[in-house]
Amino acid sequence: SRLKRSQLKVRFCTNESQVSRKDLVVLLRRKGFDISEGEVTAPAPATCLVLKERGLRPHLLIHDGIRSEFDHIDTSNPNCVVIADAGESFSYRNVNKAFQVLMELENPVLISLGKGRYYKQTSGLMLDVGAYMKALEYACGIEAQVVGKPAPEFFQSALWEMGVEAHEAIMIGDDIVGDVGGAQQCGMRALQVRTGKFRPSDEHHPEVKADGYVDDLAEAVDLLLQHAHQ
Amino acid sequence: SRLKRSQLKVRFCTNESQVSRKDLVVLLRRKGFDISEGEVTAPAPATCLVLKERGLRPHLLIHDGIRSEFDHIDTSNPNCVVIADAGESFSYRNVNKAFQVLMELENPVLISLGKGRYYKQTSGLMLDVGAYMKALEYACGIEAQVVGKPAPEFFQSALWEMGVEAHEAIMIGDDIVGDVGGAQQCGMRALQVRTGKFRPSDEHHPEVKADGYVDDLAEAVDLLLQHAHQ
Repeated sequence: SRLKRSQLKVRFCTNESQVSRKDLVVLLRRKGFDISEGEVTAPAPATCLVLKERGLRPHLLIHDGIRSEFDHIDTSNPNCVVIADAGESFSYRNVNKAFQVLMELENPVLISLGKGRYYKQTSGLMLDVGAYMKALEYACGIEAQVVGKPAPEFFQSALWEMGVEAHEAIMIGDDIVGDVGGAQQCGMRALQVRTGKFRPSDEHHPEVKADGYVDDLAEAVDLLLQHAHQ
Repeated sequence: SRLKRSQLKVRFCTNESQVSRKDLVVLLRRKGFDISEGEVTAPAPATCLVLKERGLRPHLLIHDGIRSEFDHIDTSNPNCVVIADAGESFSYRNVNKAFQVLMELENPVLISLGKGRYYKQTSGLMLDVGAYMKALEYACGIEAQVVGKPAPEFFQSALWEMGVEAHEAIMIGDDIVGDVGGAQQCGMRALQVRTGKFRPSDEHHPEVKADGYVDDLAEAVDLLLQHAHQ
């Protein structure tokens, strides 16, 4: 909210694909973030735009928590497959069904909401959508289209929504490849926060070098406000 | 059995990893094949040899039908993961458990019984072990060791068991890459039968060229017996 009182435009870019934007905003507001649904760039709504633009009717292999994002999408007689972090819904039966749909298409189109390898839960590491994307890619002999970080198109869509150019924007994130690398490829500068996914080895990552590091989000905001006032 | 009456040595090489050799032999005998368990080279027993040689204790992600092949294998405190065509047992929970075991190992070892993309059942195409191998490879950032066709080591083990050299042996199979290509890489000649997995396009495969084609197994046997009597 300090950011909001300034003249800076803010946008939340997430790869969350188990929870709808609506529910995500509720969670974030509870944590004290002043945020509304319209300020969130997320893979599911971005995918809906792609589907509409290209006349695609998806077979959905997704978590029930995000199904509402696809309420207005025609899923009859599918001509593509959309996968997201489906968690327990990644049963053999469901994954095989998505595979069969793809194999029946003349030009199989697979859209994946992110390509994360895994994420951490209190119960332990959990396989993310990327693993199942690779399984379907291999089985069908195709390459998926990724919607979400680190795809440059995803950052670009966030910039469009804000109406700013890449060189005017700064990305703040905890994932050295997905957040920092993706944003930089899109022409933005990027700060890595030393929280969440951050590991000390990230500061010596072989391929990606952040434009700066901050210990937490508050420090990032301080930095931005300082620069904005200059 | 015509082959058996001749002086030729015969060995059945299969990538079957849902059914134990014992049950497989029962099925084949019903179809009229004169075959015993000791004449079958299959990924599960070959894997057991590898495990023993290398002191590996597997976490098993396999079909119940093949569990008996691992009866004498120590699976306590696992230091590797073995996956096979587990079918419905490829639940998110089971695949994630295998992933967690791998991630807890300093040197994660993943052994895959074959790397097939899919196979056909009357109910439709079914995802094979290769898809899940790729999922785990990607999530863990590792490469699996494949035991089964088309791995040359697998054909080599069949040759050892028969006590013959590669140039003395002929492989007969329906899979242009898995059977014909694998055997040829091992130094064997290979015939493709125009049944089962065979597709007419196989005769113009970009990478693999069979040493000959036969319409069915009977024709292959005729051919072999002719040559044997010369």
